Amino acid sequence: MTGIRRLAQHLDISIGTVSRALNGRPDVNEETRRRVLQAATELGYVPNQSGRSLRQGTTNIIGFMMQTGTEITGQGDTFFMSVFDGIQTVFARHRLDLVALLCSSSEDPDDYLKRVVARGFADGLILSATQRHDPRFEFLAKRKIPFVTLGRSLTDVGQPWLDLDFEGMAQISIDRLVARGHRRIAVTRPHDDVNLGHLFVDQSARALAGHGLALDPELIFSSLPNEAGGYQVARQLLAMTDRPTAILLVNETIAIGFYRGLSEAGVKPGRDIAIIGRQSPQSHFLSPSLTGFTLSRRDLGIALAEALLATMPAFSHLYPDADPRKVWSEDLIEGESDAHTLPA
Amino acid sequence: MTGIRRLAQHLDISIGTVSRALNGRPDVNEETRRRVLQAATELGYVPNQSGRSLRQGTTNIIGFMMQTGTEITGQGDTFFMSVFDGIQTVFARHRLDLVALLCSSSEDPDDYLKRVVARGFADGLILSATQRHDPRFEFLAKRKIPFVTLGRSLTDVGQPWLDLDFEGMAQISIDRLVARGHRRIAVTRPHDDVNLGHLFVDQSARALAGHGLALDPELIFSSLPNEAGGYQVARQLLAMTDRPTAILLVNETIAIGFYRGLSEAGVKPGRDIAIIGRQSPQSHFLSPSLTGFTLSRRDLGIALAEALLATMPAFSHLYPDADPRKVWSEDLIEGESDAHTLPA
Repeated sequence: MTGIRRLAQHLDISIGTVSRALNGRPDVNEETRRRVLQAATELGYVPNQSGRSLRQGTTNIIGFMMQTGTEITGQGDTFFMSVFDGIQTVFARHRLDLVALLCSSSEDPDDYLKRVVARGFADGLILSATQRHDPRFEFLAKRKIPFVTLGRSLTDVGQPWLDLDFEGMAQISIDRLVARGHRRIAVTRPHDDVNLGHLFVDQSARALAGHGLALDPELIFSSLPNEAGGYQVARQLLAMTDRPTAILLVNETIAIGFYRGLSEAGVKPGRDIAIIGRQSPQSHFLSPSLTGFTLSRRDLGIALAEALLATMPAFSHLYPDADPRKVWSEDLIEGESDAHTLPA
Repeated sequence: MTGIRRLAQHLDISIGTVSRALNGRPDVNEETRRRVLQAATELGYVPNQSGRSLRQGTTNIIGFMMQTGTEITGQGDTFFMSVFDGIQTVFARHRLDLVALLCSSSEDPDDYLKRVVARGFADGLILSATQRHDPRFEFLAKRKIPFVTLGRSLTDVGQPWLDLDFEGMAQISIDRLVARGHRRIAVTRPHDDVNLGHLFVDQSARALAGHGLALDPELIFSSLPNEAGGYQVARQLLAMTDRPTAILLVNETIAIGFYRGLSEAGVKPGRDIAIIGRQSPQSHFLSPSLTGFTLSRRDLGIALAEALLATMPAFSHLYPDADPRKVWSEDLIEGESDAHTLPA
């Protein structure tokens, strides 16, 4: 294995400069950094990790905590894998590695986190699936473990967070559908107590109230965030005597199942019911095309990584301008699924 | 934090018994084990990890190495998340944690693995996306790091592996399509040098030869293992003057894009072309329904975890019957997509 000494000899520059280049310090010019990283790759340089840990108390690993399990499979993967790509772009500058901490759905997330922290192998953490009240925040804050959350919560310990603009999606969708004559508008929400469900449903109700309309409690459909969940919502909706004329789908993965459920009953999106959802790699292949919100998940991953590094003493000086907290708005891609207009 | 002493006091049994129960030893009866694990959860027991590492040289973490990146997103997630569920079922017995080691598509997998090993935080590894020739196997074997591979390779260091029966899928599909009168049969293969592509294409050619037919090199379509890849294959196929009458799709995620590409040209699966693919959570929502292979990914995950533990000194006595190497056959679910029959 090539150590830092051999790398410095090979490049004929000082060990100190090589070290600073490898650690992403700003006082190394870009050309030198490029040469060092290239040589490190070519010569198979591996840092002496146990030495590093003892000296710096760091492992250079950042954990992304996500939930696994048959019933949530659909959601986690489609969305997160693209976000990981953005996170890794940032971490690669500092030779940090990202690992996904897979919390089984059969385990309590708070217990899982305690165990992961006790194992002590990560320098920082990224939490997803933030709950309405989330005890994980306080657990980490007490132990001074750097973390960032993808998602807000009523729990707030001052940590950085990024979140999608669920309120904006609700407001834009409701305004758009009401303008097209819809009055009975349904919304979906996740089956559990994840914070985004509250944001989305509450804002939908407020947006309707702004038009002098009420959100009928019967038109709030809870669903698992996967294809089967969307199928179930379609079945329930079709069984109603007084069906809604439009619906907002908060999870990106339910659109495929929802379309299938409608299709079995001969109900066509955009002709018989208006649908606004969220785009995903799969939804691009739906027909009629889905009207839905989209964002660059890679950019979201980059911002998430930078917000975390900005809180870590070893990196904070490199990211003075990182947004510690940001609501990411999404763009609406117009498709055919909400073409259904009611007579005025 | 609750340590083992307090746990033993609470249960009024010896520390030794609690320790054996927590470590999944066979000489503890099931009722005791259940009580201990329940109390451990309720009282928030966390093992003293740094003490364990020093004593046993273990971290109780197993890493699953997988590749990320925008172009492979479609594949990795849909399949692996369900496999993880099975792996975690086994690991939970021993309080082992599974983490996903995310190798960015912009990084060389061999370099990535070297760095992960240097970090020294995993007791064992599971490798996926095995290549035709895979240097990772020798790297791990030399360092005596326990590992199992999901996938075969021409490289063989005697490690345990599990793999899907790609040869069986090719043989059954070809026999079925030839019996229905097809002679021009296309196959897909992944764009890179992953081993399964070789297995699938080679066996398809042998199966065709068994019927006195040849595999036309023009009918071997390379594709990215995602929706867009399937769409590209459809476009290429439709542009041919002498189109195939049937096709085998080796990746589960390409079916959605392939259907979409056909649909745009008014070509209907099962009526105008016969398709045999692989089932996925998304493919259940395709119309006409897909004829394709399926397996229990959770069971695959369980077998993968047990095969790994059978090679680790601390656990091998608990898994004397684990299959060190196994080809998993898949079941064919008959749908409408291969109903297209040619006149004899």
